[in-house]
Amino acid sequence: MIYDLIIIGGGPAGMSAALYGSRHNLKFILIATKLGGLANLVPTLKTYLGSPYVTGFDLVQRFQDHLNNYKIRIVNQPVLAVGKNSHVFSVKTNKNTYRTRTVIIATGRRFKKLHVPGEELYFGKGLSDCTICDGPLFKGKTVAVVGGGRSGLYATIFLLNIAKKIYLIEKEDRIKTKGIVKKIADAVSTSKKVEILTNTVPVEIRGDRFVRSIVLQSRGKKKVLPVEGAFVEIGYDPVTDIVKGVARLNKLSEIIVNPECQTNVPGLFAAGDVTNVREKQVIVSAGEGAKAALSAILYLEETKGAKRRRSSRQKT
Amino acid sequence: MIYDLIIIGGGPAGMSAALYGSRHNLKFILIATKLGGLANLVPTLKTYLGSPYVTGFDLVQRFQDHLNNYKIRIVNQPVLAVGKNSHVFSVKTNKNTYRTRTVIIATGRRFKKLHVPGEELYFGKGLSDCTICDGPLFKGKTVAVVGGGRSGLYATIFLLNIAKKIYLIEKEDRIKTKGIVKKIADAVSTSKKVEILTNTVPVEIRGDRFVRSIVLQSRGKKKVLPVEGAFVEIGYDPVTDIVKGVARLNKLSEIIVNPECQTNVPGLFAAGDVTNVREKQVIVSAGEGAKAALSAILYLEETKGAKRRRSSRQKT
Repeated sequence: MIYDLIIIGGGPAGMSAALYGSRHNLKFILIATKLGGLANLVPTLKTYLGSPYVTGFDLVQRFQDHLNNYKIRIVNQPVLAVGKNSHVFSVKTNKNTYRTRTVIIATGRRFKKLHVPGEELYFGKGLSDCTICDGPLFKGKTVAVVGGGRSGLYATIFLLNIAKKIYLIEKEDRIKTKGIVKKIADAVSTSKKVEILTNTVPVEIRGDRFVRSIVLQSRGKKKVLPVEGAFVEIGYDPVTDIVKGVARLNKLSEIIVNPECQTNVPGLFAAGDVTNVREKQVIVSAGEGAKAALSAILYLEETKGAKRRRSSRQKT
Repeated sequence: MIYDLIIIGGGPAGMSAALYGSRHNLKFILIATKLGGLANLVPTLKTYLGSPYVTGFDLVQRFQDHLNNYKIRIVNQPVLAVGKNSHVFSVKTNKNTYRTRTVIIATGRRFKKLHVPGEELYFGKGLSDCTICDGPLFKGKTVAVVGGGRSGLYATIFLLNIAKKIYLIEKEDRIKTKGIVKKIADAVSTSKKVEILTNTVPVEIRGDRFVRSIVLQSRGKKKVLPVEGAFVEIGYDPVTDIVKGVARLNKLSEIIVNPECQTNVPGLFAAGDVTNVREKQVIVSAGEGAKAALSAILYLEETKGAKRRRSSRQKT
């Protein structure tokens, strides 16, 4: 038994791909341990066009209701590895090995935590790990961004027109200024709204019903910084272990795709947060998942055509 | 007065971009003569993740309701040209010239024309390029559908319950029967109302006050086919006249973008059906519009940083 398509990952990208797979009558499975992925955790989401105000959890529920109109086989097993042999991929889980002509990797990201007291308690109550989602709620407020790397710089840039004051907290002796973030780092450094605290780490989040302060530690000394919000932006890791050595990755370990969601391996596609597409947004992932599925469908049609051509040549 | 951003086009890509522009407090306008674009005309839409079954018109209404939560200035003027001078773009309409630091082209596609005598004269007088819009006017009549591809098949299916007789005219030796249209092609082929004319092209539209016939050419021979209406459904052209000579286009006249919706011109972005992204789908356009807006925001911040650096160097 060889599937047309196996989708790995059940976030918005994987769900959108599954919808297209169903509509086009593909023989496919969706391998996911949980539907919705990180989208489930977004406290308020206002950027999914057509859904003015919704929690990530509720939006995922709508996605699920949508998929429930179709018979989709969801396999709840962790994937261990993806390999390719001739024209067929093997997807190995903890229980089975599935064979398929095409694969869509939509495994998303996992985010890094601070691991400090108060982090669990204040998550969604002034503490956020998604500045693009929650930033606009902090109009005219004083906030902290934890992380002076790429994620933190992007977060700070996005807050510039929103917040009154931004403390950018970086554990190293300076924020990242090189490479793709060079210009952003310049903009952040020269803004009067931003105060950069280097050699500094947060050691506790404090508040009442909402975040009121962060306890910082710098060169051995502790101090309490009053803030009305805090964004933990110390980065995410793309979940790409299963395709290491198979798909081409960038320096951030993201899968490199072209605008059609094709990877360097024919028949292997990727969509959503796991890819090098910069914007980690639900609406973007839903669009990318659709593209990946339609690209897989086109690939299947093309290779079927090639197979027919090969077999007709053999007959003559 | 220089805007941060001008979005040209009010389809799903432009609307999604406008949403992100608002959420990020950009000084921007949306130039569009009609919101929703071609999405308005889709009879049933089942692939917009989270909206299991909806008409295109209703989905556009939801998008509009979403945008109504924000103060968005919509300029209802046709755009004549987009130009760039140093770091500033000029967007010329029939009434004004607007200046802006970034532009998103989201002008979508328009229906392709036949380019035969009588086409201009009888357009809107029995000749239509939108079967969904005008089909219901032809109840009990004899009509022709030009185009045996996906668009033509959908048009024919739509007319089955309306018209008395439908000629389906296809230039190739057969209509499309593969992929997602398989069932539709079967239904069309087996209907007694439909007569399929392959290897045939229209060469003239004739009539008095209204369409009375189409002149067809088939294998070198001409014949006059009496009809009371004709629908041209031969696909679409991207609306790129306004950026010709500015943005790089592919052979189909689509704007070439990278996965971040950047064109070859810094500060000029494009999203949706107008681009070389193959999948012309509402969910894809919504995702691409979001990417384009976020890319424009990043570009604005980066260039502001560079400007501050220049001016601080001049002061020293």
